[in-house]
Amino acid sequence: MSENTVNQTLGEMPESAILARIFPRLPSSDATIVGPGDDCAVMQAPDGRFVVTTDMMVHGPDFRLEWSTPHQLGIKAAATNLSDVAAMGAKPTGMVVSIAAPKDTEVTFLEQIADGFHDACLELAPGCGVVGGDLSVSNTLTISVTAFGDLEGRQPLLRSGARPGDVVAVTGRLGLAGLGLAALFAGEKDTTNPLLLSAQLSPWPPISQGVAGALGGATSAMDISDSLIMDAGRIAGASGVVIVLDESALDDLAAHLAIECGVDASHARQAILYGGEDHALLMTFPADVALPPGFTALGHVVACADDETPHVNMGEGVLPENGWNPYTGWNGEIS
Amino acid sequence: MSENTVNQTLGEMPESAILARIFPRLPSSDATIVGPGDDCAVMQAPDGRFVVTTDMMVHGPDFRLEWSTPHQLGIKAAATNLSDVAAMGAKPTGMVVSIAAPKDTEVTFLEQIADGFHDACLELAPGCGVVGGDLSVSNTLTISVTAFGDLEGRQPLLRSGARPGDVVAVTGRLGLAGLGLAALFAGEKDTTNPLLLSAQLSPWPPISQGVAGALGGATSAMDISDSLIMDAGRIAGASGVVIVLDESALDDLAAHLAIECGVDASHARQAILYGGEDHALLMTFPADVALPPGFTALGHVVACADDETPHVNMGEGVLPENGWNPYTGWNGEIS
Repeated sequence: MSENTVNQTLGEMPESAILARIFPRLPSSDATIVGPGDDCAVMQAPDGRFVVTTDMMVHGPDFRLEWSTPHQLGIKAAATNLSDVAAMGAKPTGMVVSIAAPKDTEVTFLEQIADGFHDACLELAPGCGVVGGDLSVSNTLTISVTAFGDLEGRQPLLRSGARPGDVVAVTGRLGLAGLGLAALFAGEKDTTNPLLLSAQLSPWPPISQGVAGALGGATSAMDISDSLIMDAGRIAGASGVVIVLDESALDDLAAHLAIECGVDASHARQAILYGGEDHALLMTFPADVALPPGFTALGHVVACADDETPHVNMGEGVLPENGWNPYTGWNGEIS
Repeated sequence: MSENTVNQTLGEMPESAILARIFPRLPSSDATIVGPGDDCAVMQAPDGRFVVTTDMMVHGPDFRLEWSTPHQLGIKAAATNLSDVAAMGAKPTGMVVSIAAPKDTEVTFLEQIADGFHDACLELAPGCGVVGGDLSVSNTLTISVTAFGDLEGRQPLLRSGARPGDVVAVTGRLGLAGLGLAALFAGEKDTTNPLLLSAQLSPWPPISQGVAGALGGATSAMDISDSLIMDAGRIAGASGVVIVLDESALDDLAAHLAIECGVDASHARQAILYGGEDHALLMTFPADVALPPGFTALGHVVACADDETPHVNMGEGVLPENGWNPYTGWNGEIS
């Protein structure tokens, strides 16, 4: 194949020729009955149910080509959706992917996005694959993913299941992606700990811990996409309870993060509480069950007093909600 | 509520407040076990399978705000996806919808898109609803839909099932949407038959005919999104057969369309063969079964001779493939 052919752009090739280059690179799904090529895919749903989530990533508010490689974009788009499936206690089975890209996008760029999906599915959710999609042209690079999962006969883990007395626990990392984003905004990409950048640009959440938590007796769950404080607040609100975070557990996490990443402890603590996009899993468990391996206790659940509304606190009082808001936080510019 | 509040834009409101205005307007799904508000929805899949399709509509190549109202956009986004579900012989059960819109988009605009989804689901696919979604900001208005359906225990209708001897039949309209698009491109919106414009801007495909065709014994199916010629060619290719279109049946359709819409018969015939986006359903049936009500025979299936590749012909020879190609057909401009 000549270099000219390799570097062809979206605007120069018919859709069928582009898809013929992309599809072989995509991961396949073990749950596929009818794969790509018909008007729909047909998927297995062995227990008569499936979970479904969708998320759209837009160039500008959600990522920047100045910062991300196409391979990282594929990983991030896959991982964020897989994490929502995991947060239901489900096993990811498949996803459909739509991409709209400028006409001058080289097809190799799309191939590298596909490779990111491949690597994320293969490593984070073996058996899960891409079962369909759509390719469009747009002035704004946009990646939309819808992911599915199998509850394997279990009840779904909801945000509303936390009960007074439960232990609040987390699995996965907190604070890294937020510190990474801050470094990127500060123009410090070249001098920042790569661990922080990769947490932001190609997150690697603990997908299999979703099923592990469900099997371990979790009463509620969600993935921490906006921030520990905001998302714990959502569990508190949906469950009608107060979540009390444990100061010393947070101090331990902050001390660990500070040493690992070379930031000061108060900075690390802020990132843990208010940083988003780590896609750790936040769950609650009855106090009398042992936490599954990989889960760390961060606090506990108490009932709302008569005059209280559901909220999150740390002993010193109600914590403000805070986190990334793309509606008000993005100025409309790409860089 | 003051007018100021009503006219607030996406950039002025938190996501939760926007969703609180949109969600009550969306159609609900009869197949929902867990609805919006958790990390995933949970859907019923009674026979242990589900069909899934996805399609992304982008401002510029796929629609123009100069031509479409937001209500029409909601209808079109819903209808095109429902049509892919119908083309598998499945009953639509639910969809997830992601919208990315400029920050200065008024929330009332999003409400009207939601109303379009509501009306399309309620009328075209009762029981199907929106079970989740995502809202983002983008410089390019983009609507991504993923739709699901239930095969109710039947085998899916594939493109590969056409067999020599089968009758080729269609249900729904052909040619209207293509004539509507041509009129819009020609700047004749104000003087064109509204039937043509609505076929292009808010298509109303025969969704329930998907199940009817499956129950009626169809051997293959697809929805005609690109053109009769291109999509019949896809069934021919997937099935390894030749599809022979019947001249007199096409003449009848063209004569009817010409009278109905005030165009000449040869123009109508071109639109029927080469116009896209009508989302009629193309199916094949064994010759010994009666076509279900609403289906019109358009031709028949013959085996490929030894030296033939699968194709479509009309007696006068192989027809060229032709249809709308957004990759080469869009110049990157909005208007």
